[in-house]
Amino acid sequence: MTLEPRYNPQVTPSLDDTICSLATPPGVGGIGVIRISGPAAFAVADAVTRRPRSVPSASFAGHTLHRADVLAQDGSVIDDVLLAIFHAPRSYTGENVVEVSAHGGPVPLRRILSRLLTHGARLAQPGEFTQRAFLNGKMDLAQAEAVGDIIAARTDEALALARSQQSGRLSSEVAEIRHVILGVMARIEASIDFPEDVGELDTDLCEREIQDAQARIARLLATADRGILVREGLKMVLAGRPNVGKSSLLNALLRVSRAIVTPIPGTTRDTLEESVNIRGIPVRAVDTAGVRDTDDLVEKLGVERSMESLRGADLVLLILDAAVGETDEDRALRAQLGSTPHVIVWNKCDLQTPENAGPDDARVSASTGEGIEALEETIAHRALSGGVIDTGSAGAVISHSRHRHALEAAQARLDDALATLRGHMPADFISIDVRGALLSLGEVTGETATEDIIHEIFSRFCIGK
Amino acid sequence: MTLEPRYNPQVTPSLDDTICSLATPPGVGGIGVIRISGPAAFAVADAVTRRPRSVPSASFAGHTLHRADVLAQDGSVIDDVLLAIFHAPRSYTGENVVEVSAHGGPVPLRRILSRLLTHGARLAQPGEFTQRAFLNGKMDLAQAEAVGDIIAARTDEALALARSQQSGRLSSEVAEIRHVILGVMARIEASIDFPEDVGELDTDLCEREIQDAQARIARLLATADRGILVREGLKMVLAGRPNVGKSSLLNALLRVSRAIVTPIPGTTRDTLEESVNIRGIPVRAVDTAGVRDTDDLVEKLGVERSMESLRGADLVLLILDAAVGETDEDRALRAQLGSTPHVIVWNKCDLQTPENAGPDDARVSASTGEGIEALEETIAHRALSGGVIDTGSAGAVISHSRHRHALEAAQARLDDALATLRGHMPADFISIDVRGALLSLGEVTGETATEDIIHEIFSRFCIGK
Repeated sequence: MTLEPRYNPQVTPSLDDTICSLATPPGVGGIGVIRISGPAAFAVADAVTRRPRSVPSASFAGHTLHRADVLAQDGSVIDDVLLAIFHAPRSYTGENVVEVSAHGGPVPLRRILSRLLTHGARLAQPGEFTQRAFLNGKMDLAQAEAVGDIIAARTDEALALARSQQSGRLSSEVAEIRHVILGVMARIEASIDFPEDVGELDTDLCEREIQDAQARIARLLATADRGILVREGLKMVLAGRPNVGKSSLLNALLRVSRAIVTPIPGTTRDTLEESVNIRGIPVRAVDTAGVRDTDDLVEKLGVERSMESLRGADLVLLILDAAVGETDEDRALRAQLGSTPHVIVWNKCDLQTPENAGPDDARVSASTGEGIEALEETIAHRALSGGVIDTGSAGAVISHSRHRHALEAAQARLDDALATLRGHMPADFISIDVRGALLSLGEVTGETATEDIIHEIFSRFCIGK
Repeated sequence: MTLEPRYNPQVTPSLDDTICSLATPPGVGGIGVIRISGPAAFAVADAVTRRPRSVPSASFAGHTLHRADVLAQDGSVIDDVLLAIFHAPRSYTGENVVEVSAHGGPVPLRRILSRLLTHGARLAQPGEFTQRAFLNGKMDLAQAEAVGDIIAARTDEALALARSQQSGRLSSEVAEIRHVILGVMARIEASIDFPEDVGELDTDLCEREIQDAQARIARLLATADRGILVREGLKMVLAGRPNVGKSSLLNALLRVSRAIVTPIPGTTRDTLEESVNIRGIPVRAVDTAGVRDTDDLVEKLGVERSMESLRGADLVLLILDAAVGETDEDRALRAQLGSTPHVIVWNKCDLQTPENAGPDDARVSASTGEGIEALEETIAHRALSGGVIDTGSAGAVISHSRHRHALEAAQARLDDALATLRGHMPADFISIDVRGALLSLGEVTGETATEDIIHEIFSRFCIGK
């Protein structure tokens, strides 16, 4: 049974290199950290620094900090720094690592980096430190992806999901499912290779085990809608005629007044975008210019932008004025939305109860705050297309489309395997389906991820991680 | 002789507090560091973290790194981090310090900070860590200022100046000058208090010593023009009629094409600003819209902006077209410059030798690069108002107007002292002048800096330094 990793040494960046890069965000701060990782990490650090009594970095104990001066070519001091020493394999990457903690200015950091680059290190590619941690077995692929998720998290819930995945909760669930299927696989292969010893394949047992695996995969997949939403977020557009209260509603959702609110029609000329946290979902809320027929050129540009915003929306809030009722313009707008997921929101319900409101419509008052919490609940529910909201606090959660696709593929191959089993096909045939399921599952944690998948994952990381 | 620091304990932030803040730049990166400093640093860190075997941070050796989980209120893990341990006085601030090295994402960092704030630490003010280092005697005021300069440096030369100041070169020169004057002071006071024991004041010796001190102060002041220029930079405006080649010249100075270059008159409608490093001086070079009479509204706005730019300029390059010669418009522009320091630059000298060029005018070709290096030299020279260019590589250099003012004040008080000495005034009178000089000198290194000066200095620091 061969399920070897498909790494291609011609494409995978060499682990023999020593890499370095700025690990902290670019810009101005108190501290900037440059990370060096690889077999020559200590030698590279020593080549550009002066340390008290010239002690070689390699002789320092692991997990200790040491003062040093980084020297320019002419022997002058670029910066006085602290060196953090990590000996392989007890480091983030599993390699020898030196972290140079310097003053957080662009010029000293650039100069230190440039010294390292001329003394045996090369600049790390995006995500290359974490990629090395993966290749050196410090973490599996799902955990490595979670490192990127922790950094990119925009809400507490997204962080909690990422932390859960980094801690290995998803990985161990997938490992258990693989373990069940590997058992099936072993029994099938034994029945092929040693039919005299093991007798005929127990298809009932195989079927029960595959069904068990499928049930567990299904439980994981049920978390994907919410998990992916919490991680990736949602683009929500607030649409409606001028003066129905789009900006006020956005403010009510923000609970702080950052968008321009004004009773004069047509004053929101550019689309405003704000990040709102709705039930843990990071929502990019776009306030559009008043959508209506207009002859004013500047306002028309605003309206055109609005129609564009509508096209990219995951969810549209179509806002109506309860005090005015639904107008022909409102009806025209509603028709334009077509199949785009949307919620009808009656605003100004403190002034007037809307007469023609549908049962699913939201009724709010942006000025009093009435109905805003219920609207948030509706938004969260609609964002999930009415699907079950699984808080996922306890078990493993899927938060990457990549994982969902891999699990769906595994599920489909197991469906095939069941059909093959039930059709009393030769064991070889079943073996092919089961092996396919194993390969798909292995993509989640990386055992069977291709070079392309790995490259795709780490290239989305920032430099220095 | 009382030259006590004038700290006001009512205004100085308390050193009894434990402070914390993000120390790395805001944004997204591999690593983010939160610094905690103060008497309760270890207790605060322990209150929000789980460490292997629950070892208290205070029991870790100094300059060591330890894994820990930062816990949320509900006991869930916010992030897994490394704690760097520093015991007072062996830390940046001279206090107990814990640096929390976390994943470099805004959400985990915000959540960790918020945990610290509810467990005994308060948010640090800008520069408060460095201010504590100063108050705890880890560095003097000039060195503390240099920490800010290192971070803010925009050129290698500015970094070298800051490093020199941080290493104490300026401080020790000022200390030596103070030492000489303190000797004078002691002799004067002794002649007042114990005239029987020490005899009459040796005014010749006092005069020689004061002159020695003055010569040293003068040597320092001679470095100030260049030092301040290298640290603070210069605003240089490129002015001239449309199509004389302002953008091309800016490009030639940048040696990369980032400004819009086009042969169509009037296309540079907004002022463009670029940072150029000219002989170590960080120059903000402003390319203006073609300055000329115009009826076009949009272009007129551009022209108005240009005239505004001229007003704030430290140096103007007035660019003339060698192929066209000086026009009436050019002459009108030159008249408008008045006393603003400026250089006449004849462009397109590859096409035509300018006929009426003055001896100090620069002759360049932005397209061939001819004359650009000489122009850089001219700019650096003119930026210093024709003053001596002191590279300052060896000795102490003044790079802050604050230091210049303090030294100029000291110099003036010593002038007064000399006049008083020579006028054979009573020793008490001389004592007042000499004491004034000592107070001014002490402002540089902080011994006599007022609360206001200290506040002003550190409030310009970034948070986290």
